Amino acid sequence: MKIAVIGCGTVGSGFLELLDEKQALLKDKYNFTPGLVAISDPKVGSIYHEGGLNIKKILSLIENRDNINDYPYGEKGWDSLKTIKDSNADTIVEASPTNIETGEPGLTHIRTALEMGKNVATTNKGPIALAYHKLHDIALRQGCELRFEGTVIAGTPAINLTIYPLAGIKIKEVKGIVNGTTNYILTRMESGMSYEEALREAQQKGYAETIPDADVKGWDAVAKIIIIANVLMGGNVTVGDVERKGIDNITLDEVQQALKDNKHWKLIARAGKENGSIKASVTPEVLGEDDPLSRITGVTNAICFTTDVLRDITISGPGAGRRETGFALLSDLIDINRVKGGK
Amino acid sequence: MKIAVIGCGTVGSGFLELLDEKQALLKDKYNFTPGLVAISDPKVGSIYHEGGLNIKKILSLIENRDNINDYPYGEKGWDSLKTIKDSNADTIVEASPTNIETGEPGLTHIRTALEMGKNVATTNKGPIALAYHKLHDIALRQGCELRFEGTVIAGTPAINLTIYPLAGIKIKEVKGIVNGTTNYILTRMESGMSYEEALREAQQKGYAETIPDADVKGWDAVAKIIIIANVLMGGNVTVGDVERKGIDNITLDEVQQALKDNKHWKLIARAGKENGSIKASVTPEVLGEDDPLSRITGVTNAICFTTDVLRDITISGPGAGRRETGFALLSDLIDINRVKGGK
Repeated sequence: MKIAVIGCGTVGSGFLELLDEKQALLKDKYNFTPGLVAISDPKVGSIYHEGGLNIKKILSLIENRDNINDYPYGEKGWDSLKTIKDSNADTIVEASPTNIETGEPGLTHIRTALEMGKNVATTNKGPIALAYHKLHDIALRQGCELRFEGTVIAGTPAINLTIYPLAGIKIKEVKGIVNGTTNYILTRMESGMSYEEALREAQQKGYAETIPDADVKGWDAVAKIIIIANVLMGGNVTVGDVERKGIDNITLDEVQQALKDNKHWKLIARAGKENGSIKASVTPEVLGEDDPLSRITGVTNAICFTTDVLRDITISGPGAGRRETGFALLSDLIDINRVKGGK
Repeated sequence: MKIAVIGCGTVGSGFLELLDEKQALLKDKYNFTPGLVAISDPKVGSIYHEGGLNIKKILSLIENRDNINDYPYGEKGWDSLKTIKDSNADTIVEASPTNIETGEPGLTHIRTALEMGKNVATTNKGPIALAYHKLHDIALRQGCELRFEGTVIAGTPAINLTIYPLAGIKIKEVKGIVNGTTNYILTRMESGMSYEEALREAQQKGYAETIPDADVKGWDAVAKIIIIANVLMGGNVTVGDVERKGIDNITLDEVQQALKDNKHWKLIARAGKENGSIKASVTPEVLGEDDPLSRITGVTNAICFTTDVLRDITISGPGAGRRETGFALLSDLIDINRVKGGK
């Protein structure tokens, strides 16, 4: 497998770290020897070498100089599309910034790669939330793989769990805590902090952005529940269809009042059937103690799938983090290698 | 795929039910059209027809007459080994009764099938707990697949989750509630029942056997933690290595006393590294409220995997049931089809 990384920010470099560290394990356990041939990123720069790149050297350049322009050999300056089209990579790791309104630039990256029969592993929510069915059809037609574990709760394998080990199940309903930032804020409010204080702390810890709207107003959770609804439940949900309410109007009083009754405020993403089609929502809810999601605290995320044969299957784990999300890409590549004829 | 079912008790017939019900879904979604060619069971009887058997007819005979001797055509009376060897099945579903001391008869069934290059999906804990590494080596050498999702907490995909979507992860520690019967009894003791009353209720509901030792003395959990330790952590644990203590000496007083402190008695199976090798244990523990396993009640099971990159990944779901365990076999077959060239 020859890999090009399109978008090499925190997640892309987290992925490269793991690809480097896990080399021996991948070879021993899966007979899998992936090589990196290209990186293209508007900030850290672009480099292509058909014979392969030294990952340690790349990571050290990113860490020490914030760019890879001094890499000693290879073609420099290729943009993302040229890298996808003209490099000898057979597999594209797409980790460019997400845009939930247009899906770009990721959508064009992914479509271009798939049309050329190149496998794609992505952590980019926008393209999958907006265009999963179309992209899936291209991959099927071209005989290549489209993977996106990292679009929903980082490397916690909620997506691949459902598509592969749970193949054959029917998912009737989904209910989840799919945003780490808001869950962290709500958890801190239970320990007595105001919303503003908790948000500030989340920002200091790097969980929340300076403009925190994508998280606290529920947009990030909306993208994730759309992916769940469309990919795992066969829905056709668009952003405008999702009832959305953030956590930014929940008061410390409300959180503390609930706590007195052993109840917990959580930002809950839901998908289920309603009048024959799949409906999705993201709204704060007060959960009783008996609800398994009520005990999910901090940046941990969890998704409960209500199924036909197995009733409730719940998976929980980290919902964010550069290595945690980078791992999703690595696990996607291992499975691509497996179905494409590896061990 | 041509399937022979070896052992057609509750799990085997649960599997056949699902195979029948899910036919259209398997074809539409996975281009997978498995056929049943043989059944061999000491109680319900044996039938082989190279052109395929009618599953509905088989299930109706089992339900109405407890045996399949009146099936209208095909060879009758083949024993399990003859069925494995002489039928045209390429895939063996092994669901004969488990024996954790010898692994037989399942061990011979599975070894024979793999040696002939036939795929195996099994729910039989004994052979996997006793001889996983040897069986895995045969499968590798013969180029066939060995699957055993249903050996650990039924169809809740703890095993396949870890082998496939979590491929590339390193599991450092495992902690789980892996036996539904004991968890049901302990949950009922929290609501005020004595151990004896709770056991009787579990027996009435079909969760516990008349001789409940395999569950309440921890043997069933021992087999499961050995599978986890050896398969998922590369251990070489045998039955005699596992520290084991059942729940049969826990008193109602102890359970109620813990509850007053918001603590919960649970039968916990553990595996982890100790002095360079993998150690496993099954013992009752008192868990605090913050432990996610403390909230797993009734016949629900859960396993928490502590990993290198993703910290704690926890999966919970049903731990028993004929259809819930039968589903494990079906999901194993779907994945075999996928890696063997299906869609």
